[in-house]
Amino acid sequence: MTNAQASHNGNDNLRYERGLAKLQQIDGEGGVKVVESLAGIAPDFARLLIEFPFGDIYSRPGLDVRSREIAVVAALTAMGNAAPQLKVHIQGALNVGVTRAEVVEVIMQMAVYAGFPAALNGLAAAREVFAAEALVGEPA
Amino acid sequence: MTNAQASHNGNDNLRYERGLAKLQQIDGEGGVKVVESLAGIAPDFARLLIEFPFGDIYSRPGLDVRSREIAVVAALTAMGNAAPQLKVHIQGALNVGVTRAEVVEVIMQMAVYAGFPAALNGLAAAREVFAAEALVGEPA
Amino acid sequence: MTNAQASHNGNDNLRYERGLAKLQQIDGEGGVKVVESLAGIAPDFARLLIEFPFGDIYSRPGLDVRSREIAVVAALTAMGNAAPQLKVHIQGALNVGVTRAEVVEVIMQMAVYAGFPAALNGLAAAREVFAAEALVGEPA
Amino acid sequence: MTNAQASHNGNDNLRYERGLAKLQQIDGEGGVKVVESLAGIAPDFARLLIEFPFGDIYSRPGLDVRSREIAVVAALTAMGNAAPQLKVHIQGALNVGVTRAEVVEVIMQMAVYAGFPAALNGLAAAREVFAAEALVGEPA
Amino acid sequence: MTNAQASHNGNDNLRYERGLAKLQQIDGEGGVKVVESLAGIAPDFARLLIEFPFGDIYSRPGLDVRSREIAVVAALTAMGNAAPQLKVHIQGALNVGVTRAEVVEVIMQMAVYAGFPAALNGLAAAREVFAAEALVGEPA
Amino acid sequence: MTNAQASHNGNDNLRYERGLAKLQQIDGEGGVKVVESLAGIAPDFARLLIEFPFGDIYSRPGLDVRSREIAVVAALTAMGNAAPQLKVHIQGALNVGVTRAEVVEVIMQMAVYAGFPAALNGLAAAREVFAAEALVGEPA
Repeated sequence: MTNAQASHNGNDNLRYERGLAKLQQIDGEGGVKVVESLAGIAPDFARLLIEFPFGDIYSRPGLDVRSREIAVVAALTAMGNAAPQLKVHIQGALNVGVTRAEVVEVIMQMAVYAGFPAALNGLAAAREVFAAEALVGEPA
Repeated sequence: MTNAQASHNGNDNLRYERGLAKLQQIDGEGGVKVVESLAGIAPDFARLLIEFPFGDIYSRPGLDVRSREIAVVAALTAMGNAAPQLKVHIQGALNVGVTRAEVVEVIMQMAVYAGFPAALNGLAAAREVFAAEALVGEPA
Repeated sequence: MTNAQASHNGNDNLRYERGLAKLQQIDGEGGVKVVESLAGIAPDFARLLIEFPFGDIYSRPGLDVRSREIAVVAALTAMGNAAPQLKVHIQGALNVGVTRAEVVEVIMQMAVYAGFPAALNGLAAAREVFAAEALVGEPA
Repeated sequence: MTNAQASHNGNDNLRYERGLAKLQQIDGEGGVKVVESLAGIAPDFARLLIEFPFGDIYSRPGLDVRSREIAVVAALTAMGNAAPQLKVHIQGALNVGVTRAEVVEVIMQMAVYAGFPAALNGLAAAREVFAAEALVGEPA
Repeated sequence: MTNAQASHNGNDNLRYERGLAKLQQIDGEGGVKVVESLAGIAPDFARLLIEFPFGDIYSRPGLDVRSREIAVVAALTAMGNAAPQLKVHIQGALNVGVTRAEVVEVIMQMAVYAGFPAALNGLAAAREVFAAEALVGEPA
Repeated sequence: MTNAQASHNGNDNLRYERGLAKLQQIDGEGGVKVVESLAGIAPDFARLLIEFPFGDIYSRPGLDVRSREIAVVAALTAMGNAAPQLKVHIQGALNVGVTRAEVVEVIMQMAVYAGFPAALNGLAAAREVFAAEALVGEPA
């Protein structure tokens, strides 16, 4: 029994289930892929990823999930060193009702706070996500 | 006539006036202080600050100003190297209707994306802004 | 009952108690102060800080706590934007048996990976921590 | 008529024309490609990119363009999270008379301020730019 | 005679030889490849890379090389903008006796200090390094 | 005899002497203070600081020292997490003939590449340096 499994009893199940549902609501297929990619190297980290960010933080009632995703797209664009996660959350923002035009506005605004290169690379990530969506027939 | 003054004719006046109004709406006294602090060292930069971030970006209709301020508080918390500007924009978020509790949620969420130190320092900035507001009798 | 309190039942108590003990072992007084500073603004975040970093991560058996603190001092020195947390963890490293000379070596090495300014600012943080220790009569 | 087009009247034409000329002088083909890449996703951002960085900042008379490009190559190497833009500006530096040897010196110096990995990745970017130049028969 | 060659006399030979031995001990084939990649563009930088990081810093007796590599893996994971160097040092950590499980623990811990995206990208780098090792028949 | 002293024989003296002269030329009193501040905590690092950045890098003939200081002011402004070193190098830039107006231009340009907060904080650093110079009667 691994360390994370050891702590996975009683009410921790609640956090895990709540987190998994939230992950699927927001990140959809992209989130599932991230979790699967961890299976071979750090399965405990997959559990922690579901429990803390999604079970503890995203599940808090004090801020709507639309605002949360706008915050994440802004932060990851500004940091500029996490392209795979930025793409997952651009899709996540679309999944919870942020429009493509709004995603583009959030990223453009980062030119002011983190510079034009950060915004340009954020727009490149958005272009990839929008194009992938088009291929699978989802609406713009 | 400085370089920036030279370009300050015709329709550029529109951008400047529009930007100044936006700066005052969002950042209030904090924004005015930033502009004043530039007078002695880089007056042209004060003009550019009003024209581009506020006249060009914040004035765009595609995203509500509440979402814009949530994005900025998130980004500056995550970057972690711009405490003065973070404080101005925490106040800016409050000015446009984001509640204190929502500001705290946005900052807490950055623990997931930029680490706990970034979130802790963001919360310390929020505590200062909230305390300063209390002193001048503004509502919570 | 706050959101964090709501989730604080059953086996979550275990994570919290385990995390609190770990926080006290590693960060000592510095950690307690961080938790107390959150009481007025984000009490739920204090609980999450104890549960996830200390209850979930630091409590894992796969890496000795001495190596964990070396890793944290290195990372915070390299990031260069979290001086308060760096000081807490320099003290934390000393608390778990890393010597002052070793702390200095870790920080010096960051000159190679994050530049000389990061290392110089890390050494300034260490100087403050060492001086504060001397005042309260702790051994070098 | 988009928002950016709406503001594109009177003397704003001057900023745009001045910026476009500057972009072509410095970044050449690389700059044109960046602008074109924005056409499908954020055409307004293409205009803002020409107007503010190039029309407002690069066109200022207070600093020669050679020094400006040295500053940009240094900053993007040190930040380490904007490889595409670093490549455009390494070419830009060459375009305005900085020699290859000088570009290499600027990047090497960043080992001191941002660490050896930043400098190594900057040199890798320079190697790509120099190699691409060789293919199209431009002088060293 | 280049500038670096000019300084390469007398006791500087000692630093160079000491550094080269250290580079080979820690980074192995990965380190040699980095040095070779510099031959065409910045040969002096190859010498400086051997002399300062390896001849001056890694050769210092005050901290064991295992702890040094843990520090470097932590820092590069947290910075998140130097994937090639992170991979070289994950292999370097394995070369000096850090286990795969310990490397994974160090990277997971960075989720606390630099955010989950930094840790996820660090784990992706580790997965690549571990997989490459498996191909050439090295033990786990 | 410390480790650094042990390596301080023969031609290493040359690097040290050359570096010390360069440090004094560029950073003047500010550089001397940095070295002195290290005496109590990491005297070896003071020697390495003189030998590598100043003895090895700044002393290279391939780039004029004026361009080197412009590069450093740009990089430290963009990184935004090393205010003490930025101030030393703003003074350093002035010491080697960069004018105050040019320093301001370099910092303003960083608004494009690292965002307005980075530029605003860089200008605040410049204002402090210029004010301190005025107090001791140095020319603008």
